[in-house]
Amino acid sequence: MANARIGLVGLGVMGANLSLNIAENGFPVAVYNRTGAVTDAFIASAGALSERLVASKTYEELVAALPRPRAVIIMVKAGGPVDAVIEGLAPLMQEGDMIIDAGNADFHDTRRREAALKAQGLNFIGMGVSGGEEGARHGPSIMAGGNPSSYEAIREIIEAIAAKHQGQPCAAHFGPDGAGHFVKTVHNGIEYADMQMIAEVYGILRDGGTERERCAPAQIGHLFEQWNKGPLNSYLVEISGKVLQAFDPETDRPMVEMIVDKAGQKGTGRWTAIEAITLGQSPSAIEAAVAARAWSAAKETRRAGAELFGDLEAEPLPRPSEEVLERALLAAKIIAYDQGFKILSAASEHYDWGIDLASAAEVWREGCIIRSALLDDMASAIREGLPHDQLIFAPRFVEMLRDGAGALRQVVAYAASAGLPVPAFANALAYFDTMRQGRGTTDLIQAQRDFFGAHGFERVDGGAGQHGPWGGAAG
Amino acid sequence: MANARIGLVGLGVMGANLSLNIAENGFPVAVYNRTGAVTDAFIASAGALSERLVASKTYEELVAALPRPRAVIIMVKAGGPVDAVIEGLAPLMQEGDMIIDAGNADFHDTRRREAALKAQGLNFIGMGVSGGEEGARHGPSIMAGGNPSSYEAIREIIEAIAAKHQGQPCAAHFGPDGAGHFVKTVHNGIEYADMQMIAEVYGILRDGGTERERCAPAQIGHLFEQWNKGPLNSYLVEISGKVLQAFDPETDRPMVEMIVDKAGQKGTGRWTAIEAITLGQSPSAIEAAVAARAWSAAKETRRAGAELFGDLEAEPLPRPSEEVLERALLAAKIIAYDQGFKILSAASEHYDWGIDLASAAEVWREGCIIRSALLDDMASAIREGLPHDQLIFAPRFVEMLRDGAGALRQVVAYAASAGLPVPAFANALAYFDTMRQGRGTTDLIQAQRDFFGAHGFERVDGGAGQHGPWGGAAG
Repeated sequence: MANARIGLVGLGVMGANLSLNIAENGFPVAVYNRTGAVTDAFIASAGALSERLVASKTYEELVAALPRPRAVIIMVKAGGPVDAVIEGLAPLMQEGDMIIDAGNADFHDTRRREAALKAQGLNFIGMGVSGGEEGARHGPSIMAGGNPSSYEAIREIIEAIAAKHQGQPCAAHFGPDGAGHFVKTVHNGIEYADMQMIAEVYGILRDGGTERERCAPAQIGHLFEQWNKGPLNSYLVEISGKVLQAFDPETDRPMVEMIVDKAGQKGTGRWTAIEAITLGQSPSAIEAAVAARAWSAAKETRRAGAELFGDLEAEPLPRPSEEVLERALLAAKIIAYDQGFKILSAASEHYDWGIDLASAAEVWREGCIIRSALLDDMASAIREGLPHDQLIFAPRFVEMLRDGAGALRQVVAYAASAGLPVPAFANALAYFDTMRQGRGTTDLIQAQRDFFGAHGFERVDGGAGQHGPWGGAAG
Repeated sequence: MANARIGLVGLGVMGANLSLNIAENGFPVAVYNRTGAVTDAFIASAGALSERLVASKTYEELVAALPRPRAVIIMVKAGGPVDAVIEGLAPLMQEGDMIIDAGNADFHDTRRREAALKAQGLNFIGMGVSGGEEGARHGPSIMAGGNPSSYEAIREIIEAIAAKHQGQPCAAHFGPDGAGHFVKTVHNGIEYADMQMIAEVYGILRDGGTERERCAPAQIGHLFEQWNKGPLNSYLVEISGKVLQAFDPETDRPMVEMIVDKAGQKGTGRWTAIEAITLGQSPSAIEAAVAARAWSAAKETRRAGAELFGDLEAEPLPRPSEEVLERALLAAKIIAYDQGFKILSAASEHYDWGIDLASAAEVWREGCIIRSALLDDMASAIREGLPHDQLIFAPRFVEMLRDGAGALRQVVAYAASAGLPVPAFANALAYFDTMRQGRGTTDLIQAQRDFFGAHGFERVDGGAGQHGPWGGAAG
C-alpha cells in the first residue's frame, strides 16, 4: 500500500508545482486536495510525471500511501486552513510521523503547532519556501525549522528539489520550531525593501528632472536590464527590467501604466517589522517598504492630496545621473540587508534558535525572490565574521559603502528637494548616518526624559542614574 | 470606618504626587504601599494635606476605609506588579466596586484585566495619566477607558485633579476597556516623535554648517526659548530650551555634553508602532523616533562606525537658516500628529471604542508632555471635520503645510547632503510627499508581485485580478 515516499496536501499553484518538482526528482508523491476534482485534473495534466503521483481522495488514503515514519507537506493558505488540515491529519498519524508546513506561516503559529504536535508524539517542520511558482517547480530556496532528526529524514528530498548554487542546495535547517519560518519571514521583509527601493529609482526616473529627462517605462526597464549585468545583478532587478518593458496587449500602452498603484501585502513584511520592533530592532528600510505599501492603498486620499498640495513649488536640485542612482541603490540595498541580518540575529538569540546567518545568506543565493550576486559576497563576509555584528562594517562592504554613500546622499537630497517620496532610501541613509555617529543627539532626549520624568541618565564621565540640575523645575 | 473617598496603591513618585493632588482637591485618600514605612514617611512629609490621607497597612484596611462602590487607583510599575495588586485587592472587593489602573499599561493587558474583573462583578478603569511628576501633583492630562457608569462615579475627582484648559478639565472617558490606555500610548508615541524632531534640529545646529555656524548647546537652547513664544509653543520646546541652557554643576560644562547619548525607552513608543503596523497603519515619524532610540543604544558600534565612515567626504548644501528650521519643525510636527490621529482612528474602529479624536486633542492641550498651542488648533480642526480623515488636509493645516513644506524639504536635503541623520524629518516628508501623489510608484510593485507570484492587479481601466503579459515568464 505504501507506494509514495512523501505526501502533499493542497494543490494550489505552489503545491502543484512543488509536487511536480518532487516527482521529477524521482520521489513518488501522494497528493491530496480538499476538492477531489482538482486532484484528478492535476494528475491528468502532469504528463509523464503522473506515474509518480498518487491520487488520494481522503486523508486516510494519503496516510496509507506513505511509509513510516510518514512525512506530509501542507501547502495551503496560512492561518486557519493549516490548522484545519493538521486537525484532519494528526489523528491518523503515528508516533514519529511528521507534518511539514511549507506555507508562509507566522512563526508564532509554527511554534504553537510544533509544541501541540510534539505533545501528541508527532514532529512538525515549519518550512519556508521561496521562489514563487517557477521556484516551486524547478528549484526553490528552502528554509526549514523543527526537530533536526526529522529534517534529516526528509533532507534527501528537500535538497534534491531545492535550487542549487554552484552545486550546493539552497536549503537548510535553521533551528528548532519556528526558526525556518522566521528566516523566510525576514527574507520577505528584505524582499519588500528591495522592491521598494527599485520602485523609488523608477519614481525618480519617471517623475524627476526636466521634462526632457523624464523616462518612459521601457527606458527605465532597459536601464534595469543593463544594471542586471553589474553589481546589482539580481532576480528583482531582472524582472523589473522585464515588467517595465512590457506592453499591455489590450491598449498597447506600457503595462505598468495600466496597473493601479495600490500595493497588496499578505503580512510577512508587517510580521518582520513587528517582530523586529518587539525585539528592540528597527529595520527602518523594511518598515519604510511596509509603509509605502500601506499608504499606497489610500488612493482616493492621495488624489485629494494631489489637489491640495500637487502644485507646491519645489526647487529641485539637479537629478542624479543613472550611474549615481545605480550606486545609491547598491548602497541602500547593503544597508537594508544589514538590518535584515540583525533581525535574524536578535530573534535567534531571543528564541535560542542558533541560526547560522551565513547559511541564510547562502540559501538565499539561488531559488528565492531576493537571490542576487551580492548575497554570495554577504555569505562570505558573514563567514569571515562581522565586526560588531554589522554587515556594513565587513571590509568588502565598507569599501562599497565608502564608494556609494555619496551617491545615496545625492539621491535622498535630490528626492527631498523635488518632492518625490523615497522612504526606503531615506531610511537606509538615516540608519547609516546614525551608525557612523560616535556621538548622536539622544543626549538631549535623555535630558528631556530626566527633566519631565526623572528617568536619570548615564554621565560621560561615569555613573548611571544621575540627574540634571533642573530638579523640581518640571512643569 | 469609611473615612476616605478613594484609595490609592503605590506611593512611588507618581502615586505620591497623585495622592497629594487628590487630597488637595478636598477628597480624602486611603493610601497603601507594599512597604509600610514608605506610607508612614509619605504621610509624615505631606504637611497639612496629611489630614486627608488615611494610612492603610493592609489591603483589608484600605478596602475598609472606602465607601461603596469602592474605587482604588493602582499606580505601580506596568506589567506583573499590576496583576499582583489586583490579585490582592479583588477578593476583598464587592460587586460594583472598581479598580483603576493609572499606570502606563499595555492596552491589551487592560482589555484582559477588564474582562477578568467584569466576570467577578468588578469594574476596571484603565486610565492613562500624563504630565510626569509635576503633572501628577498639580494637574495631569487624564485618559480613561472602561465602563462609562464607573467613570461617572469618579468623574468629579478626576476632573478636579486634572489640568485645565481655559477652565475645561483635560480629562475624558474615551470608550470601553483599553480605550484610555490606548489614547495614552499614542500620546507617548507622538511624544517620541516630538522629542526626536527637536533632537534632529539640535543635531543640525550643533554639527551642521561651517565651523563658525556650529552652535553651542546654550545657543540652541536660547533659540528654542525664542521658538517657544511662537507657533511651536509647547512644553517639549520649552524644556528643551531649559536643558540645553543648563550647565553641569560638577564640571561647569553644558549639561547635555555630560550625558551619554543612549536613549532609554519604556515601551509605549514601541507599542504604538507595533499596534499601528498590526492595524495596517505606518506612523513613520513615530517609527523613526523609536528607531533612533533603539539605534542610540549601540554606542560602541557607532564608535566603530565613526572610525570606518566618520571621515567620508560630504558635500553639504548650505545649512538652512534658523527660520527655515523653525518652519520645518512645525510642518514635520503637524505631519507626525496626522499619523498619530490616524492610529487612534484605526484602533477605535478595530476595537469598536468610539474614540472622539477631538476630545483626545482637547485633553492633550494641557497637563501632558505633548501639550502645545498647536493642539488647540488640532482640536478645532477635528471638530470641524477632517477631509479624508487627514489632519494635514484640514484647511488651517493645508495653509501651514503649504508654507512649511519647502522648509522641510530644505532641511531633509541639507541633512542628507551633510551626513546628519534626520530619520523623523525624512519620514514625515516621505509620508507627506506620498499623500500628495495621485499616482505613486507601487504600480511597479504590483507588476513585480504579479510576475513572480501571480498575485494579480487592478487595472486603471477597470477589473481586478488581472495579470500582465509575462505569464510563465517567471524564473
